[in-house]
Amino acid sequence: MDANPILAEAVRGNWVENRHRGAYVIVDADGSVIASAGDVDRPVFPRSAIKSMQALAIFDRHATEKFHHTPQELALACASHHGEGDHVSNVSHFLERMGLSDADLECGAHMPTNDKAREALRAAGLDPSPLHNNCSGKHSGMLSVALAMGVPTQGYVTREHDVQKAVRAAVEYVIGEDLTEDRCGTDGCSIPTWAAPLRAWAKGFARMATGSGLDAGHAAGARALFDAATSHPHLVAGTGHLDTRVMQAFGGRLMQKGGAEGVQCGAIRDKGWGYALKCDDGNMTASHVMIAALLLKHADPDAGQRAVLEQFVRQPTKNVRGTIVGEMRAVEG
Amino acid sequence: MDANPILAEAVRGNWVENRHRGAYVIVDADGSVIASAGDVDRPVFPRSAIKSMQALAIFDRHATEKFHHTPQELALACASHHGEGDHVSNVSHFLERMGLSDADLECGAHMPTNDKAREALRAAGLDPSPLHNNCSGKHSGMLSVALAMGVPTQGYVTREHDVQKAVRAAVEYVIGEDLTEDRCGTDGCSIPTWAAPLRAWAKGFARMATGSGLDAGHAAGARALFDAATSHPHLVAGTGHLDTRVMQAFGGRLMQKGGAEGVQCGAIRDKGWGYALKCDDGNMTASHVMIAALLLKHADPDAGQRAVLEQFVRQPTKNVRGTIVGEMRAVEG
Repeated sequence: MDANPILAEAVRGNWVENRHRGAYVIVDADGSVIASAGDVDRPVFPRSAIKSMQALAIFDRHATEKFHHTPQELALACASHHGEGDHVSNVSHFLERMGLSDADLECGAHMPTNDKAREALRAAGLDPSPLHNNCSGKHSGMLSVALAMGVPTQGYVTREHDVQKAVRAAVEYVIGEDLTEDRCGTDGCSIPTWAAPLRAWAKGFARMATGSGLDAGHAAGARALFDAATSHPHLVAGTGHLDTRVMQAFGGRLMQKGGAEGVQCGAIRDKGWGYALKCDDGNMTASHVMIAALLLKHADPDAGQRAVLEQFVRQPTKNVRGTIVGEMRAVEG
Repeated sequence: MDANPILAEAVRGNWVENRHRGAYVIVDADGSVIASAGDVDRPVFPRSAIKSMQALAIFDRHATEKFHHTPQELALACASHHGEGDHVSNVSHFLERMGLSDADLECGAHMPTNDKAREALRAAGLDPSPLHNNCSGKHSGMLSVALAMGVPTQGYVTREHDVQKAVRAAVEYVIGEDLTEDRCGTDGCSIPTWAAPLRAWAKGFARMATGSGLDAGHAAGARALFDAATSHPHLVAGTGHLDTRVMQAFGGRLMQKGGAEGVQCGAIRDKGWGYALKCDDGNMTASHVMIAALLLKHADPDAGQRAVLEQFVRQPTKNVRGTIVGEMRAVEG
């Protein structure tokens, strides 16, 4: 297997300490390549980067007609949220509106991603609940699909459940490819995840951004999800996070979403382009540096947008005493 | 730059999610190569993997004659300890014996590496002290060098201080190469770190293991340090850690020490071989998998030693609910 190019490096003092390889592709809705580096045909697990694609099942299965999801709820369905106050309260309300509670969530519980939220929970002597799980909004959306389909919610995370079949069908429809059993795994929140080429993920995002190649229902659902995410960027991630900061800066022009193990996906909506990026070794900071470099080059940022991206394209490394001793930075691939 | 080979991969379900490249070399004290993979001439920061080399300054500067360091103190001088009870109490006693305290440590404070020690500190509502810093034993050894040299201890972490000059000279002597200013950085604990080829680090460890190429004083110092580390493996790392587990299993046959950002160094003492390994992207779990594979292949493990190494050569990945969803595993380079 040919090695992907080095797209980020960690420098300590005056010497490179670590190297991070990766691949990316930007395509339009027809799949024409705008830019790429590395092997974009190798299937990669998208993890949380495609939550907005998975959320299309909400529209497919007419859950919106039953529950009239608010934009906040749709944003949370697309989110890897940080367990801050507004995240927890909105997910809690979302579940309550459906007659459900955190006891119905099958994502498991983990400490909030946000430092202050985590410290507050610790200080109060409380354990985290499934509401704090970064995926609790996505799972609430999946529960709404189960209720709309009239199937039992229990076991909704399993591959065999009608909800996951609906989610898989929505993703396959939007990328225009089958997800196959020879490249399937279980995600951190217990739902199935399928690997597909970066080229397919990028094309799916371009189709969602433009509606091109999608029927009217999917096009409208995709637009509603992207509008919700870009209108409520804090709900999609959290304070200070790249996804939130970048979407805040770009207004509605750009939908950006990270996934575990170095995946970054999104769409430059006004250009009609989708993109997908994977850091080979799964390092998240490296993937942030890489995607910031990609967007600086291709997303036509204005001064304010550029300033935000520049905060992520070079990230200082500090030692135990807080002294800056190096940085992670992008490398031209 | 040619890509180093893939030496570890993370699998999720039935598909490879992440790939980790690296390089390693095993040499004898003359520098003859026993085994290698990748570019072993590219200089890499050794970080904490060479604490035992740095500790040779204790012997060079006659600190042992002044303080008669115990084996426990020498083991801690070579350690990245986990802040457990015996680590903290031994370092505290070490400082006290020299008329010093944690206020003299310039490594900074961080939470204990060990989960239980960290939780206990949190439960007691206490902040970590510099004693909990994984490098506090090494820093205590450096303070003993300052006192033996009759120089002020203050600023002992800086490149210009006589202590760091002594440490640098000891490392240069044992590897038989100059450390140069064009590849220098600051370590996590604020002392300088210099990059040198894996080949040089491996040769230095082979020389320390055999005494070959070293004068009698350095040979005796190296033997005392390796004996101390291998006799007190829990002090060198902590409960459950690869370095501790492997040294416990191998008795005195093997000295093993990890360093931040995916470095692994050591010596197979009965064979007279030194080794050095670096994971290109700095992933520590990947470097553990890689070094376990290397030792399984080259260290002639007996059944018990093999059983320990096999626990590290394939490491399960769990999701939020604790289900095993994949593993990190070694790849033949």
